[in-house]
Amino acid sequence: MADVWDCYHWDLAAVEDQILSNIGSDVPLVREIATFVLQGEGKRVRPLLLLLSARLCGCQGHEMHALASFVEYIHTATLLHDDVVDDAGFRRGKEAAHRLWGNQSSILVGDYLYTKAVRSIVDFRIHELNSVIAESVQRMTEGEIMQISLNCHKSVLSQTEYIQMVERKTGALIAAACQMGAILADADASDQEALFQFGLLLGTAYQIVDDMLDYVGQGDRLGKTLGNDIRQGKITLPLLHLLHHVDEIRRGDVQAVLEQSHVDHGDIERIVALMNEYGSVQYSMTIAREYVDKAKSALVGFGESTAKQALYIAANYMTTRDH
Amino acid sequence: MADVWDCYHWDLAAVEDQILSNIGSDVPLVREIATFVLQGEGKRVRPLLLLLSARLCGCQGHEMHALASFVEYIHTATLLHDDVVDDAGFRRGKEAAHRLWGNQSSILVGDYLYTKAVRSIVDFRIHELNSVIAESVQRMTEGEIMQISLNCHKSVLSQTEYIQMVERKTGALIAAACQMGAILADADASDQEALFQFGLLLGTAYQIVDDMLDYVGQGDRLGKTLGNDIRQGKITLPLLHLLHHVDEIRRGDVQAVLEQSHVDHGDIERIVALMNEYGSVQYSMTIAREYVDKAKSALVGFGESTAKQALYIAANYMTTRDH
Repeated sequence: MADVWDCYHWDLAAVEDQILSNIGSDVPLVREIATFVLQGEGKRVRPLLLLLSARLCGCQGHEMHALASFVEYIHTATLLHDDVVDDAGFRRGKEAAHRLWGNQSSILVGDYLYTKAVRSIVDFRIHELNSVIAESVQRMTEGEIMQISLNCHKSVLSQTEYIQMVERKTGALIAAACQMGAILADADASDQEALFQFGLLLGTAYQIVDDMLDYVGQGDRLGKTLGNDIRQGKITLPLLHLLHHVDEIRRGDVQAVLEQSHVDHGDIERIVALMNEYGSVQYSMTIAREYVDKAKSALVGFGESTAKQALYIAANYMTTRDH
Repeated sequence: MADVWDCYHWDLAAVEDQILSNIGSDVPLVREIATFVLQGEGKRVRPLLLLLSARLCGCQGHEMHALASFVEYIHTATLLHDDVVDDAGFRRGKEAAHRLWGNQSSILVGDYLYTKAVRSIVDFRIHELNSVIAESVQRMTEGEIMQISLNCHKSVLSQTEYIQMVERKTGALIAAACQMGAILADADASDQEALFQFGLLLGTAYQIVDDMLDYVGQGDRLGKTLGNDIRQGKITLPLLHLLHHVDEIRRGDVQAVLEQSHVDHGDIERIVALMNEYGSVQYSMTIAREYVDKAKSALVGFGESTAKQALYIAANYMTTRDH
């Protein structure tokens, strides 16, 4: 992956520049919070995939850097709202914005970044871009709501429901980023569709791995503590696998933990030990790898190129990253 | 105003129908909350003004009803977020959604309604509509943020700052609604601009009156208690006027109340009595009337018609309504 960062160093630096220079509000609090949340720490997965998709389809122009920055604004807006929704303490290794400026500011600056992105994207005056981004953001929001409503009815969550939620919550925006790169390059409908599918499958893998890492990360490495999802009563794939495979007595024990208002370190350790015994983390990784493989095969119609190579490497990175 | 509701009864019923039928999510919790917040109680000011603007410019088609419903979605999204930001107990005479479903759901269903509206508006495939709505929502969000940041620095808020905030917070979307009606009717740029100005001025008047009514409403008539803005430390025009005109000792007393963590009924009564003594509520009404007059004069270029008459009546209604 380091080669990809190297090879597209200039493109990524241009995006970074656009991210900070496009905030553009004359309200000081907007600039202050937006700059804080946008500065530095993000992996910029969505901008990178947009750039590579655009390059794959032969795009030469510079608009892709601005467009990529707006996709990162939308992603950042969802992070701001998620952190309020989850009452998260840390984000990207630093204190979460709502802890510093309050929930009010986080909700409203999230709204601002989202509206700024929409405003800037419609200024491209390309109907296809508008449709793709609007559709994806709608699905993303539905995914978030599915998550909180599924968590209220813990017993009924199936793997299919989990995947549907993940496809919307994370897949939709990554799919849109890839398709938007293709649209900017004036790619034909089938190339656009292939890149949309690539992004959807890869985004799904990305979230599965993210959820899995909650059970293998080392404390502050993720900027949050191990087993945080359990503390929030969030059921993700490893836990789902465990609940479906563990014997009835231990299942009762796990479910009792999920219903506790306070989950302590011992509870988490017990559940993680069970997950290791039943291969639940392993299972998540297998499913994630399947999605990565399907994503890569969506690109089979494209000829060989540096950009295609980079997309393959980025795809593999999803299941090899440790944060 | 009753004549306007009568005369455009059919148009408004069509909008009401669109409001409920366009929610269109297959996620049950989205449908449940969105239906709850959209049902019945709203005054539908923005849809009405969009319809009248469209009619004024000769629009005959039916798309205006759908477009008006999407503007109401955006307005409702901001109400959902505002109620979380303000921790409001009631909205439109019924318990606020976040009290029933939690802050999480209110934030996310607000996001959903906003993204659904954007998604539906871009489907019209009219670039001007996209620009107008995106610009207005961005300004609206900035207005909300200005409000919370100005309230943090109470001493420096001037009337100019208050007006700038109100123009963004409320004027921007009403201005957009009016201009969108004109765009749908294929009106020329000067008619579009006139309706934009009409909406901006009228929306500003509307918010000034709304803020003023916080000090003259009778308890539950507004679905919230008298002087609620003081409880939230929100400085609006009557209070601003009072602070600028009252003698120094009493100003100190008022400012001390604003800084208290708990404001009781006696505090509010004392401040309202001072406002009456200094004519602060009266003053707000005078300013609001000036804005209404300026709004009406923005329409001077349009020939006489039922729609123009209705817009004049709607404009006057802003300063005669009692809720």
